Formats: sequence, structure tokens, C-alpha cells
Amino acid sequence: MNAPLQNDVFLRALKRQPIERTPVWMMRQAGRYLPEYRAVRERAGSFMNLCTTPEWACEVTLQPLARYRLDAAILFSDILTIPDAMGLGLEFVEGEGPQFRSPIMSPADVDRLGVPDPETALRYVPDAVRLIRRELDGRVPLIGFSGSPWTLATYMVEGRSSREFRKIKAMLYDAPEVLHRLLATLSKAVSAYLAAQIAAGVDAIMVFDTWGGILTPTQYQTFSLPYAEAALKGIGAPVDERVIPSILFTKGGGQWLSAMADTGYDALGLDWTTDIRAARSEVGDRVALQGNLDPQALYAPIPALKEEVLRIIDRFGHGSGHVFNLGHGVWPDVNPEHVGAMIEAVHEVSPLYHRVIPA
Amino acid sequence: MNAPLQNDVFLRALKRQPIERTPVWMMRQAGRYLPEYRAVRERAGSFMNLCTTPEWACEVTLQPLARYRLDAAILFSDILTIPDAMGLGLEFVEGEGPQFRSPIMSPADVDRLGVPDPETALRYVPDAVRLIRRELDGRVPLIGFSGSPWTLATYMVEGRSSREFRKIKAMLYDAPEVLHRLLATLSKAVSAYLAAQIAAGVDAIMVFDTWGGILTPTQYQTFSLPYAEAALKGIGAPVDERVIPSILFTKGGGQWLSAMADTGYDALGLDWTTDIRAARSEVGDRVALQGNLDPQALYAPIPALKEEVLRIIDRFGHGSGHVFNLGHGVWPDVNPEHVGAMIEAVHEVSPLYHRVIPA
Repeated sequence: MNAPLQNDVFLRALKRQPIERTPVWMMRQAGRYLPEYRAVRERAGSFMNLCTTPEWACEVTLQPLARYRLDAAILFSDILTIPDAMGLGLEFVEGEGPQFRSPIMSPADVDRLGVPDPETALRYVPDAVRLIRRELDGRVPLIGFSGSPWTLATYMVEGRSSREFRKIKAMLYDAPEVLHRLLATLSKAVSAYLAAQIAAGVDAIMVFDTWGGILTPTQYQTFSLPYAEAALKGIGAPVDERVIPSILFTKGGGQWLSAMADTGYDALGLDWTTDIRAARSEVGDRVALQGNLDPQALYAPIPALKEEVLRIIDRFGHGSGHVFNLGHGVWPDVNPEHVGAMIEAVHEVSPLYHRVIPA
Repeated sequence: MNAPLQNDVFLRALKRQPIERTPVWMMRQAGRYLPEYRAVRERAGSFMNLCTTPEWACEVTLQPLARYRLDAAILFSDILTIPDAMGLGLEFVEGEGPQFRSPIMSPADVDRLGVPDPETALRYVPDAVRLIRRELDGRVPLIGFSGSPWTLATYMVEGRSSREFRKIKAMLYDAPEVLHRLLATLSKAVSAYLAAQIAAGVDAIMVFDTWGGILTPTQYQTFSLPYAEAALKGIGAPVDERVIPSILFTKGGGQWLSAMADTGYDALGLDWTTDIRAARSEVGDRVALQGNLDPQALYAPIPALKEEVLRIIDRFGHGSGHVFNLGHGVWPDVNPEHVGAMIEAVHEVSPLYHRVIPA
């Protein structure tokens, strides 16, 4: 039994219910820019140890909450846990990012993939969720997450971080039916993974479509969006009938917001290249919006940083439906004081945009 | 005196005048994917030698025309010739891309910059234009080009290709007035450079804003677009009163097309993430559009490649105002036969979209 939530402004904003100020959290808020994170990371030995040991994952998840007035915690994990559980063998090579020992090389590799049972192959994830929920003690909601099927497929086929995406694009053009099979399997795996996180106690979920933006509009609507939609639909209702808001974030997806708004997600993440006012007018009352500070504004002098925060809150305008965030994860060498200034600026200026104007 | 043009379908498309088929050319069409280019590149010893020797620049400019039914040639050069002429010392390190020996490190470095005289410091460029025009003998128009002021500033401040753009973003946030001074100088330099190319004989110009897409909408409208506009306005009318169509290409600029369409350029380049039908409806009759095949479609089997070509031509729809191109430069390891198939597909299917329908 979890403690009742003391702060649900984040969940209400995602549902576009009245709020008294704009909630704020930060992608990768538990991360390398924090010295206390780097200390735990060192003790853990490897990034994968950190992810797969619930006590450590819990500790780093809670770290930014001790420093900042954040309105949500996000499970500390990696987007590539699913392919790892599928047997691809995830490794993090210093300075090179994630790699798979056994990437997808053939249609047979695709057909061999099963949907991992999250409570066995990925048990460390729901275990971490349960532990974090207990330690959070109702302070703020906990966000669970997954990579999108398309983004997972990209890493699984490329075998590692890529900037050119030759292999996945080759598969897309040469063997689209194989790619569709891979994506169908992945969307089932993502549904099961998110359902397990929800059963273990997360209050909201987010799907990261990090590489949807490398596609043409037609490709996005063929290979990314329908599988992100299927992953959401496949979750099913939680047994305890809680309402779990959902967020879809396609980096570089600013041109496709209207299509994204029709998939059933409650909110869309925006990177920093989209004007949040134009986005709001495009999606109307279909979804809430999350974002979209330039992550490099955190390197700016604090007055300039605050101005950027104010600009985004003001561009969104009056009323509920905005969760303040960066347009991408926080960079590892950002000064934690600047993060604090950003968060405080949201607390300071946003209440003005939520006052009920007397009729 | 140059020979009269035998094929002006490209120029007419840019002016949205009636055409009988969609013109086609390809960014980086003179490049490493061609074995005959690699042979000249080897003889030249260095990439800079190739750029700065008019005979070699002319030879590689003409190479793709011997193979393919292209509707334009583009001057073989680099976008970083202007900062090189400003004294920054351009070098190409194998496998690392361009680097400057003396990047911009301080406000004093910015104030020290002059506007290079293209006919002295950059004489190899108008010389190459004159030679190419002679050798082209009126077969197709010749495109001159420059990097945009913002994109040049990015390289000059970062000192090299960057993926994070920390230094230029730091300047943008910490010292915007210094960045504005740099951009003002660069827009004058770009105007003078393009005017010299026009005087030497190019028939159209293109401004490459390769890094405009890393900006927020407000930053784009503050630091990139006004200087691209000023660079165009600063060119002035050519002494011989020719009409020189102009193209502005911001990679990642699909969300800002409407603003771009109001700057005086005749056409906008589109990368592959934008739906050309939506773009056409957004810009209306203000500008023509150039693009926007996924450059990785050239790795596809030829039938799939042709389908992509047809899709783009069909999405643009009936009538003038479209120049077929890739959404980015051709990759070096593309099969030249696939390039040929793409170009022939444009010749084959596009006339259907330019038939005059009887009233």
C-alpha cells in the first residue's frame, strides 16, 4: 500500500485539469551533472549495475528531489533494457554509448525474438519501482518509461548509437515486412513492460521516440507512430483502476504533432525547436504539452536562463496543460545551481498563468 | 560573353513559371560517390587544393553532367571559404571534417574581422565560375552558393564540426551583441561573395543554413533568418540586369517555412522530414520548393527508390514551383547507378504533373 500523493500537480497538468502553477521536472534529472550521482555511479562500477540494482536505481532516482522542488520523479533506468532482456546483450562502452553484443542481423534474428516477461527477465525494473514508491512516500508522482518500438528497433538493428542510421533505413527500404514484424514484437514488449511498471506503482508513463525525427513524414506514420500507439493501447487498464497519464516524445517530431495528438497519449513532449504556442494551437484540447527549454539555456547566465524559462511559460499562456521540462535530457556538465535557478523560476512565475480570472 | 542557356527549366521552376517537367539536381552531385571525382581528388592531394584550383573545381563540377541528365550544375566549392579568407585558416583533417587553425575565441577576434574582397582573397571562386561557365557552354544553369551567416558563425566559433554547439550557444546566451556583430560582418561578406559569383556568371544562388535547425524558433528568427535575408538584400542587382533566382535551405527548418517565405528568396530547400504538400500549402505562391527525397532512399532497391521519387513528385502535385533534389547532400558510398535511376525517374514521371489541363 503506497502513501497517498501529496503533490499531484504534474498528473493534473497532464490531464489538463486546473492547477495552481506549472509543474516542472527534467529529462535525465537523475544524472551525471549531479556530484552525488557520480559518486553512486562510481560505487556501482558500471552503468548497467546501476540500472539493474534496485537500491542504487532508487537512490539516484531520489537524489534530485533532495536538491530541487521537482514535481515528479522518473525511474532511473535505460531505454534499452527491453532489447537486453530479449538477449541482445547491452553494453556501455566508455565514451561510445550503448552497444549490443548480438544486434539484429537477419530476418531470422527478428523471428527468434520473444516478448520478455517483465517480472522475470526485467524483474529489476518493477523491483526498483516498488522500492522507489516506498521511499518516495507520496511526495511526488513517479514516472515510468520505455523507448518507443521504432527507437528500440533502431538501436537493435544499428547495434549501437548511430548518426547515419544506414542499417535500419536499409531494412526499411529493402525489407519493410521484416521491420514491421520487429516493430510488432517490440510494441507487445513495450506494452508488457509499461504494464509491469504500472502494476508496480508508477503514476504516469512516458514513451521516448528518440529517433522518430530521422524519418520522412510517411515513414514516421508507417513505422513509428502506429507502433507507439499500439504500445499504449496494449497496456490495458490497471487492475486497481488508477488513471495513468501517458506522454509521447518524438525528438524532432515538431512537424507531426497533430497526428501524434490523435493516438491516445495524454501529452506530447516537445523538443526546443518547436514554438509551444503554435504547438498548443495545433493540438488544441486533445493533449497536454511537455517541454521545451533549450537544454543549452542551462549554460546561460542565470538572468538569461530565467528569461528563457519565462518566455516558454508565457508562450504556452494561461491555463492548464503544460508541464515544464527541457527539450532534451540535461547535459552532464551543466552547473547544478543553474538547474535550481530554472526550477525556482518556474515556481516563481508560473502561478500568474493559472489564476482564475473572475468572469 | 557566355553562350545562351539551352535548358532553363530549373530557373523557370524557381520563378514558378510554366515548365514541361520537374527539374532535378542533387546537393553534392559533384562528390565522393563518383569514382571520377575520387580520381581528381587524389590528384589534387587535398580537398582545399581541389577547391582553390579553378581547373580542378571546373572538372569535378562538370563530372556529374557527363553521367546524368541534370538540370543544373553547382559550383564545386566549400561553404567555409569565407572564414578561410577572413584569416581563420581552414583545414580538412581526414575523417574529422573541417577545422579552423584560428577560430573565434573572443569579442576582439570578432571585431578584427574584415569583409574579404572576393576578387582578391577569394579570387579562385569567381575564376572557377568563369571557367565553368565557359566549359558548360550554355548546357544548364550554374548555381553559386554560400553558407548562411549563422552557419558560418557556428563553424567559426566552434572551430570545427560540432554536434553539441556549446560555444556558439554560449555566445548566443552570454554575449548576444557580440554574436550580432559577427553575423552583421558575415552577412556583408556573404553578399559580396555572392555578388562576385553572380558577376562571374552564376545563374542562380543558394544559401546553405546547415545549422539553423539547432535553434529555438525565437533564436532562429533572431540570429539566423534576418542575416540570411540581409545577405540576399545586400547583393544588389547585377550590372547586366539578369534575374538571379535564389534558394534558402535551412536543414531542420521545416517548422519555420512561413517565416522563411517572407525574406525575398525565390525558393526554399526542404530536408526529408517535411511533407512537401503541407509545405506547399503553407508557403502558397510566395516561393518555390526544392527537395526533398530522403538521401538514404538512394540505398534502396531501385523499385523502392522510384516509388519514393514518385511519392514526392505526387505530393507536390500539379504545376510549377518544384525542383527535385535530395533533402541533404548525397552520401559518399551511394551507388552511382541508383543516382541515375533517381534522375531518370524524375524525367519519366514528372511531365504528367505539368500537362496543361484544358479548361
